[in-house]
Amino acid sequence: MARRQILVQLDSDDQPSVFDAVVAVDAEVDVLLRHGGVKPDRVRDLVYGAMFTRGPEDLHHTAIFVGGSDVAAGEELLRRVTQCFFGPMRVSVMIDANGANTTAAAAVLAAARHVPLNNATALVLAATGPVGQRAVRLLAGQGAKVRVASRTLARAEAACQAVLQRIPQAQLTPLAVVSDDEVRQAVDGTQVVIAAGAAGIQLLPERIRRSASDLKVAIDLNAVPPAGIEGIQATDRGQQREGAVCYGAIGVGGTKMKIHKAAVRQLFTANNLVLDAEEIFALGQAMT
Amino acid sequence: MARRQILVQLDSDDQPSVFDAVVAVDAEVDVLLRHGGVKPDRVRDLVYGAMFTRGPEDLHHTAIFVGGSDVAAGEELLRRVTQCFFGPMRVSVMIDANGANTTAAAAVLAAARHVPLNNATALVLAATGPVGQRAVRLLAGQGAKVRVASRTLARAEAACQAVLQRIPQAQLTPLAVVSDDEVRQAVDGTQVVIAAGAAGIQLLPERIRRSASDLKVAIDLNAVPPAGIEGIQATDRGQQREGAVCYGAIGVGGTKMKIHKAAVRQLFTANNLVLDAEEIFALGQAMT
Amino acid sequence: MARRQILVQLDSDDQPSVFDAVVAVDAEVDVLLRHGGVKPDRVRDLVYGAMFTRGPEDLHHTAIFVGGSDVAAGEELLRRVTQCFFGPMRVSVMIDANGANTTAAAAVLAAARHVPLNNATALVLAATGPVGQRAVRLLAGQGAKVRVASRTLARAEAACQAVLQRIPQAQLTPLAVVSDDEVRQAVDGTQVVIAAGAAGIQLLPERIRRSASDLKVAIDLNAVPPAGIEGIQATDRGQQREGAVCYGAIGVGGTKMKIHKAAVRQLFTANNLVLDAEEIFALGQAMT
Repeated sequence: MARRQILVQLDSDDQPSVFDAVVAVDAEVDVLLRHGGVKPDRVRDLVYGAMFTRGPEDLHHTAIFVGGSDVAAGEELLRRVTQCFFGPMRVSVMIDANGANTTAAAAVLAAARHVPLNNATALVLAATGPVGQRAVRLLAGQGAKVRVASRTLARAEAACQAVLQRIPQAQLTPLAVVSDDEVRQAVDGTQVVIAAGAAGIQLLPERIRRSASDLKVAIDLNAVPPAGIEGIQATDRGQQREGAVCYGAIGVGGTKMKIHKAAVRQLFTANNLVLDAEEIFALGQAMT
Repeated sequence: MARRQILVQLDSDDQPSVFDAVVAVDAEVDVLLRHGGVKPDRVRDLVYGAMFTRGPEDLHHTAIFVGGSDVAAGEELLRRVTQCFFGPMRVSVMIDANGANTTAAAAVLAAARHVPLNNATALVLAATGPVGQRAVRLLAGQGAKVRVASRTLARAEAACQAVLQRIPQAQLTPLAVVSDDEVRQAVDGTQVVIAAGAAGIQLLPERIRRSASDLKVAIDLNAVPPAGIEGIQATDRGQQREGAVCYGAIGVGGTKMKIHKAAVRQLFTANNLVLDAEEIFALGQAMT
Repeated sequence: MARRQILVQLDSDDQPSVFDAVVAVDAEVDVLLRHGGVKPDRVRDLVYGAMFTRGPEDLHHTAIFVGGSDVAAGEELLRRVTQCFFGPMRVSVMIDANGANTTAAAAVLAAARHVPLNNATALVLAATGPVGQRAVRLLAGQGAKVRVASRTLARAEAACQAVLQRIPQAQLTPLAVVSDDEVRQAVDGTQVVIAAGAAGIQLLPERIRRSASDLKVAIDLNAVPPAGIEGIQATDRGQQREGAVCYGAIGVGGTKMKIHKAAVRQLFTANNLVLDAEEIFALGQAMT
């Protein structure tokens, strides 16, 4: 008889995400095994339970989803998960802690609709957070020159180093961006801006955006007003504003959700997938 | 494809209720997302996960059940749940913490089978607890004059005030009832008595009940001997005892269970229902 | 309509076992209600929720599985579960904390394939642990004379006493086994040896095993090298080694898994089963 598809949800938050669970249900997962408050040292037993219960030919019917609001904690859980695997004894796993991978993928896909990225210069504001860093990785992976902006140069440089370890050929420029002048210089000459800042912090004033003559796409990933890029509405989805195509957090949400569901479904096509930012982005590219 | 029905179980107890889960399964819920030890400050993320995953046209396929043995904690969780909603962005929710709503509804429905409530005088013993207060609300909502009895007048008056805020036209009389004389006076002239006390506390001695000449229906909601109303058996279900029709906790349990299941099913008929005591009682009325 | 089969998983570990959950899914359980970190004083409410939600004629569609890595904690949970039952108000329950029952059953079944146990003398090394004690019980229950070996005589004697309380006619010999001479004497004259020690501890050196002329079956239940019985591979499954048929931990794992699934399925055939080591072993016998 056909095995039911089982998704093991490992979440570092005390209460495992309802969001991730509903998406899994809508991605046709048959059975969810949900775990909240997962500590790294508990991962092994849980993963062994996924690995050692079904024969090798059935292991692709079991998969693992790593979530939770703390992206660094999720990354540590993912590391522990993959350490359990050996030879053919493994199950597929995806990480989307805090939605960072699907959000960054949806944002970069939105930009790619309007600008050939391998020829573009892009600016990521608040690039050192989890979504920002992933946006930098995905843009650089597509061949874009990326300006990596943070409030301090040291943090921007650290983010660049982290990306360069994954993508040695990445063309990155770390920038300290605080004053209006620094913002203006950072935007100047870019075709794409992605703002990935915390809720309620304005990163790009409207008058500077309006004066950025090369800017083709402006994407703001903050759903709570005020927007990180002044003038963008959260619901913007390809909205023309003073020469730039604009997207807000809700505007990229539809794509984000489709990518999330497609990634969950893909987990059950093989038992050896590890879906992190790049793999999830590639999946989004294949969908469009 | 049809969305599966998802019920998010928010329970303030460390271990979420198995009782509520089994009833949900038997009410044909497809997927249960169970959360125990839910603190008020964690509600928002969980509810957002229910609200922001399915499109507006599909939101009635997701609903929330608030439970747990602590009714006050459940009420706070419900308050936090409804605070998350805005405009059409909402899902249906019901509260039955400690079974208080379905128990009170089943008790008042049992009384209504034998006495026209809008003409009746009813006494609720131990009326300040969660089940007692709900019984007072439901009786008053049906137009009955209700005597609200507690060990102290202050608590009885506070319970009346709480009910009056919801039902300004309620006809309530607060009573301090401790001595046999006070019990006798409280029962005298009533057609309905509901005892909603804690396990093992006798509230109405048999000789007083026998001498209450107007009494038509006596309902005791305590399943553990001794009964709150002496002489009633927990399994009584319309049993005639000295001129009064009697119900015990198990005797109203069948109706309680049917109401509980019907309420869960109703959650999935719309995305804007809030099922508290009155709505659950109305559902029970419609079933009979 | 047919009731869905519900299995309530009570696990003493903070994170309930994924292993047990996947096996339950593959045993065709419809709905899993999983509880981790279950404390004895929380059992009653959970079990009442299983007992009081479906009518007596439907109670066999709900069952309880007690698991967790701590076998003593699991036994206490089982005791609390069965204390809740009265008259026909009960549901079936099985315990397989740390896999001890299914592992011991699979090991003794493997031995029984090659040696008539009611005529045999068997040695259980590390017999005082949860798997070892169950192996002793099952061997004694089949009529074998059992040598019960531990590092100290006092612990071996205590284990014998515990088994004799269940099986008064058991033929047990407690042994302190530390030195090579003690191991040699313990093995001498036995047809069956089962090693149930902790990971990484060698209990029976290869040269002593080779010189044990009566030995027909050697079973090692340790999956992590070095083996408890030197020379046995974890994957041995009836492997001939110097005159003895050998089984390793993985070699008995297939049978263990089949027994586990069959036991879960059997839970739903009646509402009054308590499946502990002997019942699970009997189920394994019936399968072969």
